[in-house]
Amino acid sequence: MGPSDPTGLHRVLDDRVVLPQAAERLDTRRELWPDEVRIRVERLNLDAASFRQLERTHAGPGAGPDAIRAAVLDIVATRGKMQNPETGSGGMLVGTVEEVGPDSPLGLAVGDRVATLVSLTLTPLVIEDGLSAWDGRSEQVPCDGYAVLFGRSIAARIPDDLRSDLSLAVMDVCGAPALTRRVVTSYDAPRVVVIGGAGKSGSLSLAAAREAGATTVGVVPTEAEAALLRGADLADEVVVCDARDPIALRDAVGKAADVTVVCVDVPGCEGGAILATAPGGTVVFFSMATSFSAAALGAEGLAADVTMLVGNGYVPGHAAYALDLLRSHQGVQDLFVRRLA
Amino acid sequence: MGPSDPTGLHRVLDDRVVLPQAAERLDTRRELWPDEVRIRVERLNLDAASFRQLERTHAGPGAGPDAIRAAVLDIVATRGKMQNPETGSGGMLVGTVEEVGPDSPLGLAVGDRVATLVSLTLTPLVIEDGLSAWDGRSEQVPCDGYAVLFGRSIAARIPDDLRSDLSLAVMDVCGAPALTRRVVTSYDAPRVVVIGGAGKSGSLSLAAAREAGATTVGVVPTEAEAALLRGADLADEVVVCDARDPIALRDAVGKAADVTVVCVDVPGCEGGAILATAPGGTVVFFSMATSFSAAALGAEGLAADVTMLVGNGYVPGHAAYALDLLRSHQGVQDLFVRRLA
Repeated sequence: MGPSDPTGLHRVLDDRVVLPQAAERLDTRRELWPDEVRIRVERLNLDAASFRQLERTHAGPGAGPDAIRAAVLDIVATRGKMQNPETGSGGMLVGTVEEVGPDSPLGLAVGDRVATLVSLTLTPLVIEDGLSAWDGRSEQVPCDGYAVLFGRSIAARIPDDLRSDLSLAVMDVCGAPALTRRVVTSYDAPRVVVIGGAGKSGSLSLAAAREAGATTVGVVPTEAEAALLRGADLADEVVVCDARDPIALRDAVGKAADVTVVCVDVPGCEGGAILATAPGGTVVFFSMATSFSAAALGAEGLAADVTMLVGNGYVPGHAAYALDLLRSHQGVQDLFVRRLA
Repeated sequence: MGPSDPTGLHRVLDDRVVLPQAAERLDTRRELWPDEVRIRVERLNLDAASFRQLERTHAGPGAGPDAIRAAVLDIVATRGKMQNPETGSGGMLVGTVEEVGPDSPLGLAVGDRVATLVSLTLTPLVIEDGLSAWDGRSEQVPCDGYAVLFGRSIAARIPDDLRSDLSLAVMDVCGAPALTRRVVTSYDAPRVVVIGGAGKSGSLSLAAAREAGATTVGVVPTEAEAALLRGADLADEVVVCDARDPIALRDAVGKAADVTVVCVDVPGCEGGAILATAPGGTVVFFSMATSFSAAALGAEGLAADVTMLVGNGYVPGHAAYALDLLRSHQGVQDLFVRRLA
């Protein structure tokens, strides 16, 4: 074994030098490099876009759970990680620390129950139970096997005072409220529009924006979601609108936003988000369905002087902050519980 | 004719409501809405990524200039705009103002020689000469025809004191130095790394960063480009490195950057740019080859607390600022002249 790199480069099996996330295939050996940690996996939490793609392709009428199970097993066996080749996305996992390398900087101990906050797209993974306990109907995948964390990976201990499915759902999107808070606090009493305000990252982002002193506007696609969001008391205004229609969104939002946060995983929301934002404002794109060129060319084509951020899923302290938002906002908790039901 | 919208929405022929940039097809009628301007086109300047794709597909051994000409004519006739369906990108155009609607806010007069600073991907365009004067070998396309600007489009008068091909080449990338200046001035005496420092947007960004008080590092792929960049006296350090190799880039850059500006149009530079940037730093992606998900998941996977910006091609005053940089930095001018030769 050669030396390890904190990025996990030493486990990339591709011919070209690429980071684990960009790699075709990872080395999944059990044996650890000195700065690594091995996790006994209990559950995979597939990225929603990835699960929907797999479901469309493998779980249609006539196909049973065997087809979608086989698809996931095939991806993991081939690539050494769960990265959907169509969507490029992964998910996260839950498990228990099984072994800690002597040089690991992560501060974990054997027996800790943790969730990984780095994507499955770069996490070496071996499935050992054929996913026999998964019915193929949900992105929550019971799984026995092991995974490896690198020196620069992140994992968070699962808190004792919250239902663990709730904690996991929060951790899955915890970068959004932390980055929203950071952006919102750079404006004075801003107007913040969250597209997809009743969703997981959306409701947390609304709570973060309101705590930071913003006037909050939640955009949702249906009256049913609007009723839910009104009940959650997170948004000063609730607007029903198809965010893929840029002119409708601009008109529905009314007074332009200082900060617009895009939390809906559907393509084609770039133009509307830009048009809904005032000159000098900021658009934060958390949706993995965002098109880089649509955003860049869209803003240029509209002569829109807005700052556009790629939503970075890592902000220091993000998991603890998001869990605190859930604890302190009953409305957020209610939306999460309903979604998990 | 219904009412017009400053975004050009009134010329979208798609069934869905989308902005002109996202549209399949635009209305190219000659007749103007009151806030529009019609330009007599003299030259199209195709986006480099688009031209290379067309060249690969239509101008290989055995194919002549007729094939690539036919491809461009077909796109423009079908879509009513020059937007390469493969790359999604367009380019810009040069021409003379032919008619100005009574309500146009652009401040243009009949006879003004202008370059459009909004993308061809959203500009209604009719080609009337079959591109007979184009040899198919360069992204500079002589063309007779007309194009339409909307209320919210941008066009800049071509200055008299500079060669017009030089002005156009500068205007084509003028968003990069303006946004670089804005980001750089938010740091105190920062270290700024520009990937693709000897290119058009790269050399202008280096000049902008240096004027803003930064220590500048230019990254180039070859020794030949390094020699050119050293001669231009824009970078305090010049580094030769393949930016697609993230570890090599991190190591070559040495002390991590406060601001990293990505100006090379090749895919796969996201990881290296993130790794080369210090915690709290900013990465500005100007390359249209940037993958949104690679950037978002890459930063998360590396636990990198960096701000990532989608390079917006519009910043108020960008064209005048970029032309001034060219006038005041002989090194930038030399690099541009050499590139146009």
